[in-house]
Amino acid sequence: MPHQPTAADTRRTLDLAFAPRSVAVVGGVTNTRGMGGGSFLRATKALGIVPAVYGVSPKGGTLEDGSPVYPSLRDVPGDVDYVISAVPASAVLDVLEDARAKNVRLFHLFTAGFRETGDQSRADLEQELLRRARAAGIRILGPNCMGIYSPGGGVNWMADAPAEVGRIGVLSQSGMNASMMVEGGARRGLRFSRAVSYGNALDLIESDFLDYFRDDPGTDLVLCYIEGVRDGPRFVRAMRDLARHKPVAVLKGGSTEAGSRAASSHTGSLAGSAQVWEAVRRQTGFLSVHNVDEILDLAVTVQHLPGVAGDRVAIIGGGGGASVVYADTVDRAGLRMPSFGEASRRRLSEFIPVAGTSVRNPLDAGLMAEGELARAVEILSQDPSVDCCIYHFGVDFGPSRHSGPRRFEERLLTALDQIKRVAARPLVLVMREPQSVDGMEVTVRLQAAIGRAGFAVYPSMERAATALRRYLDWRRDHGAGA
Amino acid sequence: MPHQPTAADTRRTLDLAFAPRSVAVVGGVTNTRGMGGGSFLRATKALGIVPAVYGVSPKGGTLEDGSPVYPSLRDVPGDVDYVISAVPASAVLDVLEDARAKNVRLFHLFTAGFRETGDQSRADLEQELLRRARAAGIRILGPNCMGIYSPGGGVNWMADAPAEVGRIGVLSQSGMNASMMVEGGARRGLRFSRAVSYGNALDLIESDFLDYFRDDPGTDLVLCYIEGVRDGPRFVRAMRDLARHKPVAVLKGGSTEAGSRAASSHTGSLAGSAQVWEAVRRQTGFLSVHNVDEILDLAVTVQHLPGVAGDRVAIIGGGGGASVVYADTVDRAGLRMPSFGEASRRRLSEFIPVAGTSVRNPLDAGLMAEGELARAVEILSQDPSVDCCIYHFGVDFGPSRHSGPRRFEERLLTALDQIKRVAARPLVLVMREPQSVDGMEVTVRLQAAIGRAGFAVYPSMERAATALRRYLDWRRDHGAGA
Repeated sequence: MPHQPTAADTRRTLDLAFAPRSVAVVGGVTNTRGMGGGSFLRATKALGIVPAVYGVSPKGGTLEDGSPVYPSLRDVPGDVDYVISAVPASAVLDVLEDARAKNVRLFHLFTAGFRETGDQSRADLEQELLRRARAAGIRILGPNCMGIYSPGGGVNWMADAPAEVGRIGVLSQSGMNASMMVEGGARRGLRFSRAVSYGNALDLIESDFLDYFRDDPGTDLVLCYIEGVRDGPRFVRAMRDLARHKPVAVLKGGSTEAGSRAASSHTGSLAGSAQVWEAVRRQTGFLSVHNVDEILDLAVTVQHLPGVAGDRVAIIGGGGGASVVYADTVDRAGLRMPSFGEASRRRLSEFIPVAGTSVRNPLDAGLMAEGELARAVEILSQDPSVDCCIYHFGVDFGPSRHSGPRRFEERLLTALDQIKRVAARPLVLVMREPQSVDGMEVTVRLQAAIGRAGFAVYPSMERAATALRRYLDWRRDHGAGA
Repeated sequence: MPHQPTAADTRRTLDLAFAPRSVAVVGGVTNTRGMGGGSFLRATKALGIVPAVYGVSPKGGTLEDGSPVYPSLRDVPGDVDYVISAVPASAVLDVLEDARAKNVRLFHLFTAGFRETGDQSRADLEQELLRRARAAGIRILGPNCMGIYSPGGGVNWMADAPAEVGRIGVLSQSGMNASMMVEGGARRGLRFSRAVSYGNALDLIESDFLDYFRDDPGTDLVLCYIEGVRDGPRFVRAMRDLARHKPVAVLKGGSTEAGSRAASSHTGSLAGSAQVWEAVRRQTGFLSVHNVDEILDLAVTVQHLPGVAGDRVAIIGGGGGASVVYADTVDRAGLRMPSFGEASRRRLSEFIPVAGTSVRNPLDAGLMAEGELARAVEILSQDPSVDCCIYHFGVDFGPSRHSGPRRFEERLLTALDQIKRVAARPLVLVMREPQSVDGMEVTVRLQAAIGRAGFAVYPSMERAATALRRYLDWRRDHGAGA
């Protein structure tokens, strides 16, 4: 290799990648369906930030918005910082040659069909690509990945990713898992600084991004999906260093035997054993999860509950059977349910009726009258035995029930507004997953509104309790980055 | 007590309770909102089966449908088999006296505020109610419960319960959990023979219903939510006897210390320790679950996968990252992921492209062309190493994706139709929980259609794998009722 890039080279490349002056998408740019050149072009143009975004395809023609499709990268006017390749693997060396002529700095390959196929000639092609890129001073992102989402800098691959900038970073070897974190997280009110899907990690590897996130003042929390690492010792150093500065949650793909075989055919990764990975976790101090739902639950927890003092929860909500099952759930998850103090019980019984309900923990009280939820949370948050209140509710309002969803939403948001002013301890919301179309409409509106109001909301008691317990354990053991 | 009812008495009472000739609802019958007399009356009338359904309330007046409200039970013309009491606890003894005059056989108390409050005078009132009912030859259901849902016989308390009759029985100490099983199960394509919410179990106790379900030719599978049992030795005998005849899944409320305290204030139950309960499970052979979602997952499994031969699964679906995480998920749940045989790989590679995907288990192949899913399942179901195929997919179709949800639904249902004819092994579907209103519309339609087509569908890979593993374990240990 003629030139081994330095850390400073990598840093400059990534600064440019997250905010390029010009982007060219090569291949399939006139396709309006499915993932490919067209979707990269549309998603990036939709953000409206990158000054010049070009479509390149041998057939030429024009895009939906009337702009020209250039037959070759060489036909694009001026230099190009960042190329997104959506051509077949057989064409990438030619496109790289064109890229060299245009002073391209970063070459992202959505193009797949390299080492991950297990085919030697395709693995050789991947190595040849790296050799030529190094010779040309071009950095490679991927291949076999979705690349970059940078709402502040204008690059994007997702149709439903938010345009607003947040403070969560995503690093994912899989594009689908990155999309599920960003798009799924957005629906729960989360916003992101940047996301990277890095696939086969041929040139830019996981630790390059970990280092970048460590120094990134725009990122407070990092979510990772990792199948295998390219450089083990460097990874341990980079992860430990990052986790010292900010919380990091990691979903390890391929941590079982079956998963490890799958990872090998997905990104050509050697996934390593679960034991090794657990040792890395202990050394580096990241938060470990098992799936995308859990990583988003943790992101919600870290974002909204940094100040939760301990594991003693008060449960509030309607339905005796649900209350019993939820008490079992939080107990089984390792949280504690204290008995309320005498003062709390007296104050609560002033407005909570006794028949069929009871002033105990869990507090069996459903849709309370105006102001009562806020009052209950205020009282319990002053109880010295309670660290955190959890309010559970469902949003499938059948034909004959209550006063309708709009009224419920108004009341809940009014209550949250009061609670922010009066509660001494955090409130967690559990909004059961909807079963009806009407319930989903309420959920979509309320999830966003609750997040904006600064409260953590989860779709089940299990998930709330698991995330809270995991966060408390991690803070006890590795709390430096919290 | 003047008369201890015999098993034959109980059986006759329950036959009548599930198909009464006349029902009277007493209290709150003109209320159109919330749970109470009005909702029982509306739900039962809506089924249109019970010949005479009366509303009783001291205020008199008329119902929405123009029928009269009788000021007292004594004013109702003719005898009444079944009374639903929605009056305050202080009025129940008077209503019972009226019921005696009308030859009432079963007195169901939605009315709460008895023993479960922990108040001695209310516990005394409950005992007085039992004493007087026994003297009058009237059986008591409850108090503090939702009573009976019997789509074949016409009694109902739920706005969204199906009118169609199915073959699943529900026995629940909690009305809310019973509703969640029936209404939630209905959305997943399950149908029910009868459901009972029995609350404080003052007279009719859990084992009376277990015996009834055992002998009920209309019930193939029983789902239970139980907080505490009134007669331990009889419960063990009744449950063992039932579980010998048909599969029984049990959600035990109050199986932790926190849950046990909650159960005591919910239905006045002594919940017993988790160790005792586990011993009962081993002796009697029911399937044990932790929440309502799990019990419905098991019902789907028992209903649609009785013939699954073993734990070796083939996973099919789109997205490399999802495939890796799902392989980890099924491995962690204790299922096995075999390598496909050489013949299967060759036949699959004839139509599955290699770039970015691979002909391995999990098979990374998303929305396949017409007929390809059916072909893949056919091939894999002939592979001697595979017991069961799992196809995973999401239904949140963003603006730019694929050819739209309707087209996807059509293709999937066409494929399922083909698969029913050609597949030698069962196919399980994992339809990820929707995140959008459009996705929920698809989910509501597809869940019902998939169930009708005779396939098991679950909302996540975790839940599918957990239910399948639990069912296989149970069949190995206690398979007689399967």
